[in-house]
Amino acid sequence: MPIVQSLFDTDFYKFTMGQVIFKEYPDVPVKFVFKNRTKGIRLAEHINEEELRRELDNVYSLRFNKTELHYLRGTNEYGSRMFSEPYLEFLGNLQLPPYELKKHNGNYSLEFFGLWSEATYWEIPALEIFSELYNRGLMEPLSEFERDAIYATGTLRLAKKIKILRQKRDITFCDFGTRRRFSKKWQDYVIKTLAKELPNQFLGTSNTYLAMKYGLLPMGTSAHEMYMGLSGIMRDSDEEIRASHNKVLQDWWKQYGWGLSITLTDHYGSDFFFQDMTPKQARKWKGLRQDSGDPIEWAKKALAFYKRCGVNPKEKLLIFSDGLEIESIIDIANYVGNAAKKTFGWGTNLTNDLGFKALSLIVKLMQSNGYGTVKLSDNLAKALGTPEDVKRFKRIFGYTGSMYKECKY
Amino acid sequence: MPIVQSLFDTDFYKFTMGQVIFKEYPDVPVKFVFKNRTKGIRLAEHINEEELRRELDNVYSLRFNKTELHYLRGTNEYGSRMFSEPYLEFLGNLQLPPYELKKHNGNYSLEFFGLWSEATYWEIPALEIFSELYNRGLMEPLSEFERDAIYATGTLRLAKKIKILRQKRDITFCDFGTRRRFSKKWQDYVIKTLAKELPNQFLGTSNTYLAMKYGLLPMGTSAHEMYMGLSGIMRDSDEEIRASHNKVLQDWWKQYGWGLSITLTDHYGSDFFFQDMTPKQARKWKGLRQDSGDPIEWAKKALAFYKRCGVNPKEKLLIFSDGLEIESIIDIANYVGNAAKKTFGWGTNLTNDLGFKALSLIVKLMQSNGYGTVKLSDNLAKALGTPEDVKRFKRIFGYTGSMYKECKY
Repeated sequence: MPIVQSLFDTDFYKFTMGQVIFKEYPDVPVKFVFKNRTKGIRLAEHINEEELRRELDNVYSLRFNKTELHYLRGTNEYGSRMFSEPYLEFLGNLQLPPYELKKHNGNYSLEFFGLWSEATYWEIPALEIFSELYNRGLMEPLSEFERDAIYATGTLRLAKKIKILRQKRDITFCDFGTRRRFSKKWQDYVIKTLAKELPNQFLGTSNTYLAMKYGLLPMGTSAHEMYMGLSGIMRDSDEEIRASHNKVLQDWWKQYGWGLSITLTDHYGSDFFFQDMTPKQARKWKGLRQDSGDPIEWAKKALAFYKRCGVNPKEKLLIFSDGLEIESIIDIANYVGNAAKKTFGWGTNLTNDLGFKALSLIVKLMQSNGYGTVKLSDNLAKALGTPEDVKRFKRIFGYTGSMYKECKY
Repeated sequence: MPIVQSLFDTDFYKFTMGQVIFKEYPDVPVKFVFKNRTKGIRLAEHINEEELRRELDNVYSLRFNKTELHYLRGTNEYGSRMFSEPYLEFLGNLQLPPYELKKHNGNYSLEFFGLWSEATYWEIPALEIFSELYNRGLMEPLSEFERDAIYATGTLRLAKKIKILRQKRDITFCDFGTRRRFSKKWQDYVIKTLAKELPNQFLGTSNTYLAMKYGLLPMGTSAHEMYMGLSGIMRDSDEEIRASHNKVLQDWWKQYGWGLSITLTDHYGSDFFFQDMTPKQARKWKGLRQDSGDPIEWAKKALAFYKRCGVNPKEKLLIFSDGLEIESIIDIANYVGNAAKKTFGWGTNLTNDLGFKALSLIVKLMQSNGYGTVKLSDNLAKALGTPEDVKRFKRIFGYTGSMYKECKY
């Protein structure tokens, strides 16, 4: 059985972003690039090229089916009829662009060229394939019992998380671990278990297929991809590039209004974000997401920001999603307390905690409209872009951060 | 599915003892009694009477089948054709005697009356049923995931044992855990795993069914039951009772010779044993088994005994089987070193180590030929018999031991 059995086995944000891209920027040529951020791991030594191609070819052959489109049409948790008929029709006819895979120096280069509106759906399946094939490689030399012991370790680590969370009933969270999961089967088990064991704290999953399968809330709003895409479209001047950041917020609000109004805050560094989001936006938007840097420092900044804007932070939602572990979740929750609403988007360490080191794999929009894109974030280990572009964007966005901390996940 | 699906799901010693009983003492009336040695546990609060009766009724309906008799006929590891045709024919026609179950004060009383040669086969199935029903009761209130976590705990504890044993390649052992297993399924898993993971150290299992299923060595010689049975048959005087101990050794040697010549040493205390076994027997017999008291003290006594008898202990086998855990196995192995051959009969803690406290359940031959029987052993917590009989037997066997240590298993 192939790893990816449905295009629905993807993060829900691909559809929320996908609709905006389809509607506003349907014809922008882009390049998505696969990257392995984990140093010292040469993926081609772990993953067989033929198998990899077979899995990618399988994804290339997939189409959205009627049930999946019905499910999206019926999604009303973030506003009624949030997905328009033209977009659903577009999805029904969608054929992913081809992939370009090369092997050199023990590593794989994997790129996707095409229209933004079409190529965007490659991100998650590509990550699912790399993650699962790599983990299969780790399991292969083990005996049947040693594999049992790996799953037993995963089960007991999950049990420990559940036990700790039962003691902290104010903590809610959702699964953001599709892209880094140990395997499709393991993520399925984790989600099913959390839904039963922590029904009042586990809010849902970013995985659309699993949300549908288990009757859970599909979760996700937008990603760095929107900022990167817009920076290629609004590129005529430094001012346009600078303005592209707020344009993401404006496009989003126009499409979804309050229902999905949560945004990342770190794309060009959170210092810039807290200058750029207007008090009017701050008042309207539901909340903010933290995805790099120090989460406690960020929470301080966010609370101060809301106060400056004359907003009671208790009415706003802070979402934390940067390399979470149970200990950091507890620390952050204790810090935020009742100062604001809070929740957690728990990724790698939720769906890939069986004793092996998880890889930090990403697929990023590295070219938009013919231009190189940039991500700065609050941790320069997560920065992306050519040195020249990064330098220019730091200047444009007044970036002064210096934190560099290797990504554990 | 019933817990006991075959009369072969029993300890191999039932057949080695069974043949001697069948041949030498076919018509002795006896009583076997079920006892729960674990204080504070009232079994009727954990085990439903109807279910218990259903399981016991099922065992009552079982018969040995052709394949099982073929397997016994073909057993040649302890001497060729060790099971005679008359005995195999007897087994083929065997119908267990009925059981007598009563409930009082939250406990069960379970007794088996009949001929020794027939009632003896109730011991292990009765223990299997109590152990598994009790453990089912512990699992019942748990969620599906909490049950997964119990099995995961068992898997990781087994993995730890295997890891430690891989570092101690001179340690061999076998499974004696049928009577106390968590469940039939779990013992099956443990045995299958050990056979694959430690093929040179895991020598076999006392469980005849699993030995047959996995092509392993069926293991077991004789038990306290022989001494208890003989004490009722040779009862005319203190001298006869005293002589009944060595009669067990004589009967055994007559039937099996060197191949199965390993005996328990603690029935009336090991001090008596090391006076009673003659130097001639010591020279001929393959080895000795320790089942109560301090194993290191016992090893000292056994080594000294062999030296007194002019026997090189390096040619003899010491088997340890009293409530073993990985730590005590290592300690004993380190102490014995190369002074003698050594191996371990690992019971409860091998097949029932999933996080729950295991019970100390036994079925013992408490009456033989109309007389109450006695077990003293090297730990008075394991002693059995009426106070009067125990007092008399202590005198007869010159028992001076005073160790009393609650049985963990």
